Formats: sequence, structure tokens, C-alpha cells
Amino acid sequence: MKQEITQQLTGSASIAFTKPVYVISCASVVGKKEGEGPLGNDFDLICEDPMFGSDTWEAAESTMQKEAAALSIGKAGLAPSDIRMAFAGDLLAQTSASSFGIAGMGIPFYGLFGACSTMGESLSLAAMSVAAGYGDHILCATSSHFASAEKEFRFPLGYGNQRPLSATWTVTGSGACVIGNKPPSEKIPGKTAPLLVKNGCVKVTGITTGKLVDYGLKDSLNMGACMAPAACDTIYQNLCDFDRKPSDYDRILTGDLGVVGKRILLDLLNEKGIGIEKQHQDCGLLIYDGETQDTHSGGSGCGCAAAVLAAYILPRIASGEWKRILFVPTGALLSKTSFNEGEPIPGIAHGVVLEHMEV
Amino acid sequence: MKQEITQQLTGSASIAFTKPVYVISCASVVGKKEGEGPLGNDFDLICEDPMFGSDTWEAAESTMQKEAAALSIGKAGLAPSDIRMAFAGDLLAQTSASSFGIAGMGIPFYGLFGACSTMGESLSLAAMSVAAGYGDHILCATSSHFASAEKEFRFPLGYGNQRPLSATWTVTGSGACVIGNKPPSEKIPGKTAPLLVKNGCVKVTGITTGKLVDYGLKDSLNMGACMAPAACDTIYQNLCDFDRKPSDYDRILTGDLGVVGKRILLDLLNEKGIGIEKQHQDCGLLIYDGETQDTHSGGSGCGCAAAVLAAYILPRIASGEWKRILFVPTGALLSKTSFNEGEPIPGIAHGVVLEHMEV
Repeated sequence: MKQEITQQLTGSASIAFTKPVYVISCASVVGKKEGEGPLGNDFDLICEDPMFGSDTWEAAESTMQKEAAALSIGKAGLAPSDIRMAFAGDLLAQTSASSFGIAGMGIPFYGLFGACSTMGESLSLAAMSVAAGYGDHILCATSSHFASAEKEFRFPLGYGNQRPLSATWTVTGSGACVIGNKPPSEKIPGKTAPLLVKNGCVKVTGITTGKLVDYGLKDSLNMGACMAPAACDTIYQNLCDFDRKPSDYDRILTGDLGVVGKRILLDLLNEKGIGIEKQHQDCGLLIYDGETQDTHSGGSGCGCAAAVLAAYILPRIASGEWKRILFVPTGALLSKTSFNEGEPIPGIAHGVVLEHMEV
Repeated sequence: MKQEITQQLTGSASIAFTKPVYVISCASVVGKKEGEGPLGNDFDLICEDPMFGSDTWEAAESTMQKEAAALSIGKAGLAPSDIRMAFAGDLLAQTSASSFGIAGMGIPFYGLFGACSTMGESLSLAAMSVAAGYGDHILCATSSHFASAEKEFRFPLGYGNQRPLSATWTVTGSGACVIGNKPPSEKIPGKTAPLLVKNGCVKVTGITTGKLVDYGLKDSLNMGACMAPAACDTIYQNLCDFDRKPSDYDRILTGDLGVVGKRILLDLLNEKGIGIEKQHQDCGLLIYDGETQDTHSGGSGCGCAAAVLAAYILPRIASGEWKRILFVPTGALLSKTSFNEGEPIPGIAHGVVLEHMEV
């Protein structure tokens, strides 16, 4: 199969896709707490059992991730064998949730690690691959699980340790998308559910690749502060590279900055003379009710941005409620080893431009 | 900058690049033990200090990785600001060697995890990006460090634990390459050292993306056995997708199967009626002298395939001693958590076709 494509390199860290890249389908799977939150009705699947029928927290996360991927592939009316390659990652050491999750689906697989920015990295590489003609259908997915993340980064749940108000709550959730080079279509009416609202769909029109930004912060219970400078850098870079104003986007959605990180992001951008107060939303603030759910600064984790993207963001773009948005998942690059050795917590954020299109 | 490209999708998991993709430069940095091995004279830098002047094993690995990247960029006559994006990863939890290594160089960064197959993943994504016109110069690199890996996956070095003969020795080393869309050229004669032997250089002409292969093996001290089935799958897929015989390659080089894994790979391929005895070499068997260096089954780690690629493989292709080779780094997807929870150790291997070209 031969395919002609044209790329436009924009500025110093962005790519504008001149060949169409579509989000064919998307799916989200979350846990009980997320299901009780403001987006409860928007998720495809809410599992009451935090173990997702498995024996360990890690296996639970892998099961949830595979379920989200299978749902997304099914909604597109495809089989795993129709997927040319998959880009996936998670927060666990050696991304084991993905190694024992999506990697096991028999799809040519590229494992990623971008901490909580991984959905942005996954979407970026999938869109780059589709636009370049490397595949008709490419899968991207990420996941996180509150219990596997607490075990990986903090304390055994049994300790019931205190959490400061700056701490975020790792989302138990997974989001997956199938990216393709043709607009979504109802393969089997009634049986499939591509990302199509009336005649509206979602195009990936550009990306801005994140750079590591390190302000020397070391508090793993204030990840929002660690990631905000990276979100600022990527948003600013995106506006410069594409020569846009914040008002050129209906929304600018960060991944999991939470209350603290959001405030810092807005301040940092204001220092550059840029106001995104009107456009900005944070997936970590959308997924939980901060008043009643005791999640302190908000939600976090790879699964936060991914599940909110699939459940809340993409449908609003497809429907035309939003014409163009900038999706900016944010990651805090730490491990318990680097943290315990006194290293700072650098941040990275990957930007993806998503636009409404009538088919 | 606009660019026209044409891709050829080959078979079910491979891509043949019809636009030229060149290895502009490469560099390797290793530790004392690797410097004492058969390839000692081929490495760019051998550091006698296992700490690489740092305070921790992890920081040592990050320092070594940054050094390899800086050397490679410098040999190409470029500055980090000339690099459009970087693809890098390592074995540590949350790929922290890369987060505190190459990610800190201010280059738009995509973090990867493919265990010891990461150099294949990194080269594949860099070549895909260059061929698609996403950048003129893209960096790929990986690293591993014996001490940081033993700490991450096995026992504190102080224990002096026994190692079975099937165990491999994690290479303290890093390899980096700059991939570009124009042949390498002497930017500043005498000052730069691009990958150019007389008029010969190296092209990346194709890739085969690996799938996870799980035979249910659980012995983390016999990684060769865990990875051999994946190497078999990728090599077989590559030969089918490109319609080639083993003799169409001057060499088929796996990453770190070692003595045990090599034997299993040859047996598995023989069962499929394919003999690669004449072409096969393993980076893990090339880097140490098994007789005198007490490395048991051979070398392993992300840095093994990467350092041997930069020091031994690429120069032989550039010189024309080898016209076409298949580079197949192999990864064992385990974490200490999944291992301790009794999960198997699946393998994955990514194939990259490298060819000699006269400029």
C-alpha cells in the first residue's frame, strides 16, 4: 500500500498535519470513585470492584486497560488484527500495567513512558504515524490505578497516611482511542459506536512535543506545582508555533494540575502576558467533586487525562460544541528512587490540537 | 518547511522507507569492564569510575547517557538546539536514567520503555519521524548500568549473591545516534566525526515492529530464554514481510540473548525451517569475553545493543564490510513487582534494517 503525504513543520517543537488524521473511536473505563464523580454518566464502563476481578492491583490496572482498548477497537467496528500498531504506557515501574495489558493483545507494540503526560505522547506518535501513512488504524491508550500508584510511589494503603491538601488523588481509570486516516463511519449500525455525533467528528490537526522543565521542586505530594511550568512551556510554545491566541481555542485542557497547579499555570502564563482563564480547564478538576469526594487538589495519573478525554472532551468536539481545543496532559518525572535520593521532580507536557469537522 | 514523502507498508508489521533515512553519527560510552572486553578499542569513551563522577548509580547512568548523546551530536557537527526531537529510554523504574539524562538537554522529548529492546524502538521511531519529514535531525539513545540494574531488579551488590550460568551481566554502557534525512558530511574537517568511512555511510531502509511474545517463562536469571521467542517472531516476521532469506543479510544481530538465548533462537527458527547460524551474532556475546570475564551467559541491558551498535556494527556497515544487516534488540518485560507477584516474563524485539550506501 503506497500513500503520498505532506507535512508542515511549524516552529520549533510543533507539527501541523496536512493529511487528515481522525479519532475513529474512544472508550473509557474507570473505578467506583470516578463513577461517583461529576462525569459518572459519561464513562463507558464503571467497575465497582477495585480489583477488576484480578488478584493484584497491578493486574487490576492491566485488566482495566485491556478493557478500554477492546471497547475502543470494538466501537470502531474493528478487531485487534486490524490495528497496525499500538502506543501505550502507564505509571508503574517498567510500565508493567501496559506490558501485561495492551502489549498482550498481539498488536505491534511501542511502549512509552511520559508519566501522566503519556496520553499526549501516545496520541502524538499515533497521529504522526497515521499522517505518515504507517497505518490505517493505530491504537493509543494509558491507564492508572489509585492503589497500584500509591504502592509504587507512596505508602501501603494500610498505613492510612495523611495527605496534604496539595496532594492529588490518582485516578483509577483508562482511556483508549483508535486513530485513523479516514473519518469514522457506522460500520454495523446499532452494533458499533464510532466517535460520530450526527455528522460531526474529531480531527487531530497538530501537536507540540514537550520539553522537560525542571524548577527544582521536590515535593511528590505537590505534583501540580512540579508540572505547571512544563504545561506553561508547552502551551506557550504551541501558541507561538501555530501563531495563535488563547481565544483561537475553545478550551485549553491540562491533564492533572489540580487546584494548586492550575493557579501556578495561570500565574506563569500571565507573567508572559498570556491569559487563558477563559479557556482553561483541568481534567483533574473535572473528574472529581472537590467539595464532596475528599480528593484535595484534584485527580491525577495517566488515566485521568485519558479517561476525561474519551468521556468528556472528544464527544464535545465531535458534537461541534467546541470547534478547536488544545489537549495538554502533564507528567511529573519522578521515581521513588530518584525521589528518595533527593532529586527534583521535573515536568513534561505534550500538546495535541483537536478540531471539529463535519463529514 | 514542506516535504513530500512516500511510504511503503510491507506485510503486517514492517515499513520500508522509500525516502532516505541516514545515520549521521553515533557514539558509545561504557564502563571499565566493557572497556576490558573484545570491543575495548571500538568505544568512544571508557570511564574507569563506575560512578561517572556522580553520587548515585542512577545519576551515574544519567551522566553516561548524556555524555553519549553529547558526543553523538558533536560528531555530527550539531548542537542540541539542532535536534528536532529525541527518543530515549532505559531500564530503571519510570525510565529515570533518561528523565535525569537526555530529557534534560532541552530537546523535545519522547520517553520510551521497551526494556533491552529500547534501542530498536528508539531507532524505529526516529527513522519513521525522519522519513515522514518531522525533523532533519533526530536523536536516539539508551543506556544501562550494571549497578543501577542489579539494584532495580535483583539484589544489593553488597549481598554478593550467586548468579547461575544462565544469568547475563548488565552492560554499563550507553549508545546514541543522530538520524537525519541527508547523508553525513564532514562539517568541520578534523573537528567533527560523522559516520562516514571513506565515502560509505549507513541508511535505515526498513523496520519491523515487535509484538509481545510470552512463553510463560518466569526465571529472571535466564532472560535469554524469555526473549528468544520474541526475537524469533520478529526475525521471522521481517523475512516474511520483506520477502527475504537469511542470506539476504550479511548479519542478523540480536541484542542480548546470550549463550542460552542464542541457542533457543536458532532452535526455534530451525523449527520454522529457517537457518540463521551463518548470519547470527548477539551483541551480548560480542561485548564480553565469556572465557575470562565471568559474565556467564553474556551481556545484557539497553546499553548492550546500543553501545555495540555504535562501536562495532555501524562502522562495519559504513565501511561496506557488511552491505545489509538486521539489528534486533530484545527486551524482557518484567518489573520486580510483576516478578515477585509470580507473573511470567514476556519478551519483545524490534527489528531495524541497516544498509551500506556510497555517497
